[in-house]
Amino acid sequence: MKKVVLIVMDGLGDRPNSILHGKTALQAAYRPNLNYLASIGLNGMMHPIRPGIRSGSDTSHLSLLGYDPEKVYTGRGPFEALGLGLEVLPGDVAFRANFGTVDSNGKVIDRRADRISEGTELLAASLNMEINGYRFKVKEGVEHRAALVIHGPGLSSSVTDSDPHEVGRKINTVRGTEESGTRTAELVNRFLKSANMILANHPLNEKRVKDGLKPANCLLLRGAGKAPDLQPFSEKYSMKGACIAGIPMITGLCNMIGMDIIKVKGATGRTDTNYEGKINALLQALKTYDFVILNYKGTDVAGHDGDPILKKSVIERVDRAISPLKDILEDTVVAITGDHSTPCSMKDHSGDHVPILFVTSGNLRDRVRHFDEISCMDGALEINSINVMDYLLQLSERSDKYGA
Amino acid sequence: MKKVVLIVMDGLGDRPNSILHGKTALQAAYRPNLNYLASIGLNGMMHPIRPGIRSGSDTSHLSLLGYDPEKVYTGRGPFEALGLGLEVLPGDVAFRANFGTVDSNGKVIDRRADRISEGTELLAASLNMEINGYRFKVKEGVEHRAALVIHGPGLSSSVTDSDPHEVGRKINTVRGTEESGTRTAELVNRFLKSANMILANHPLNEKRVKDGLKPANCLLLRGAGKAPDLQPFSEKYSMKGACIAGIPMITGLCNMIGMDIIKVKGATGRTDTNYEGKINALLQALKTYDFVILNYKGTDVAGHDGDPILKKSVIERVDRAISPLKDILEDTVVAITGDHSTPCSMKDHSGDHVPILFVTSGNLRDRVRHFDEISCMDGALEINSINVMDYLLQLSERSDKYGA
Repeated sequence: MKKVVLIVMDGLGDRPNSILHGKTALQAAYRPNLNYLASIGLNGMMHPIRPGIRSGSDTSHLSLLGYDPEKVYTGRGPFEALGLGLEVLPGDVAFRANFGTVDSNGKVIDRRADRISEGTELLAASLNMEINGYRFKVKEGVEHRAALVIHGPGLSSSVTDSDPHEVGRKINTVRGTEESGTRTAELVNRFLKSANMILANHPLNEKRVKDGLKPANCLLLRGAGKAPDLQPFSEKYSMKGACIAGIPMITGLCNMIGMDIIKVKGATGRTDTNYEGKINALLQALKTYDFVILNYKGTDVAGHDGDPILKKSVIERVDRAISPLKDILEDTVVAITGDHSTPCSMKDHSGDHVPILFVTSGNLRDRVRHFDEISCMDGALEINSINVMDYLLQLSERSDKYGA
Repeated sequence: MKKVVLIVMDGLGDRPNSILHGKTALQAAYRPNLNYLASIGLNGMMHPIRPGIRSGSDTSHLSLLGYDPEKVYTGRGPFEALGLGLEVLPGDVAFRANFGTVDSNGKVIDRRADRISEGTELLAASLNMEINGYRFKVKEGVEHRAALVIHGPGLSSSVTDSDPHEVGRKINTVRGTEESGTRTAELVNRFLKSANMILANHPLNEKRVKDGLKPANCLLLRGAGKAPDLQPFSEKYSMKGACIAGIPMITGLCNMIGMDIIKVKGATGRTDTNYEGKINALLQALKTYDFVILNYKGTDVAGHDGDPILKKSVIERVDRAISPLKDILEDTVVAITGDHSTPCSMKDHSGDHVPILFVTSGNLRDRVRHFDEISCMDGALEINSINVMDYLLQLSERSDKYGA
């Protein structure tokens, strides 16, 4: 049996960019190590989820790890909460939230409280509370955005939004959309009553009013989702798994399936991350773990910024950092791919397929010599992200035979 | 409408082998006929079941014949029984079995009866019986292994094992795991009481004890499975089908779906089979049948033996034997593939995809000129085994239009 390494360059895939004379960032990057691994590996294209789907990082990572999002993904609530660094456990119910402004009659004046950007961490922290043994945790996001996670037994996500989604309308009382949601709705309403009282009296809001800004005196909830009860990774694959990633959404997801999270100094989840530090941590982790997933977020960040030069340089840094992987192929299977494309020309995720390579000693090689979107189209494989774990398992001699 | 031929070189696929200077057995083989058919055909790679799955010959042949194993495969019991040459009919329940040794208290001393290898055919034959109209048949396998098939109405496979799976524990009374299993469990317990009595008193065991060997005085049952009620091949495809194969698992499976089995003198299911005889039988069969599946097992045998030179020579013999197929393409569609890979370096099935070619007059051709794992990666198709029959049906002008 071999060890297994899955390197994900987040949002790796791209489209031809005029700044790069019609090349993609990956094509334009100096990438001798990626090319070498491609030349001794089995390459191809991977559809995130399935052909044409514009996946998020949450759904694509679920799928990459072999958890079919079409079966287990329960909406953005729990995964946005993970992304903000909140702990989300199976059975927890999470909402996406806004800090908004209401008048004295509870009518919404501004769903974004003048796009409040400062001090939301104080507001969020003031809303953590326990009601009847249920724990409520709020975490701020970018600008007016936030998330709420409720922890406790027997919760249901079959509840309506408190957010009326329109200015001029009163905030809604949360209601169960099914019998099972009634009790959760009551709990949420009790929480909101306290929370909105706390916000109304928060010193930050007094200051905002004095400064001529709308107060963030109301938490608007939408998109309740229940955290799925995912089979632990170790149980599903008989592998002890670890995760190295700079962003909470990925570490949170891996934590949810029972992986250990390895912290690396200087791993920021940005383009200035500690590229070598993460690989060193991976090599170290392989001494005690069977499987390590490593996410570099910088490629996605550069894609969202629409900066192909930056994306190219992130890829070049990754290429240099992964050099030691060439020396562990005797007893390790390495896969390198993106979780989806984030074309710089689009500044958002596309539904394109992305290059993928599998490499280990003794395996089949195809004729691909370069690791990029176009070269890998000539590779051996065209698969969906849900197939990746099966492929890694068989290459690492960890699969059970299906049949006789 | 054309006739249809499916040639399966069992375990055909392989990985680079140092003995063959980094080539696969198929790449290294002198194979002018395979290459010719590839050069005038449509080629590609086929994932057994789906990408990364390490399939057995049973599941992969089911899938190749268009029966989705994820819907119809009911465990190894029925298919191992088929593999030993037992007749298994829809509704039959089959167990995998061991000849083991118990002490006078029914405690298991050895689950393999000193790995008994001689005379098990006598022991097995002595256990065939009928109870309340239910027919029990036992067939010996390799060493201590065997299978039991029960034939009769209303049987259930929802029953526990009699095998305690551990030395030092008493053999288990078989129990129903669901209501439906109660009656079957009772029948099996009655059978086992008689069977173990017969074994205890069998002259072979008296001789073993005298020789200082543990007696095979107990049949340990595990992994009950009910033979699936598969739609007959002729009904599913409106084709009259025949099977030419040297191994009982394949003939048994084809028999289960109502195909005729054509016996060929010298067809051994080994590397010394009658290569030309099987092709002659196929050409003869095409006069009366619409579809013929022909399995050469030698490639798989050589793979399990880890012998790439032998595998190469098996492929060369197949190549020479199939030469006459070049002359029937006007009114026949021929597909050639493996059911899975059995890399010599692994001595077992891998989850790699395998080359496949489809050839008939007037069809599309791709640019592939050689039939092997690497060349076919450049071919037109990347499919799963479940897609093969649909492709054969459309090429042979036998498909119904889906829609208007």
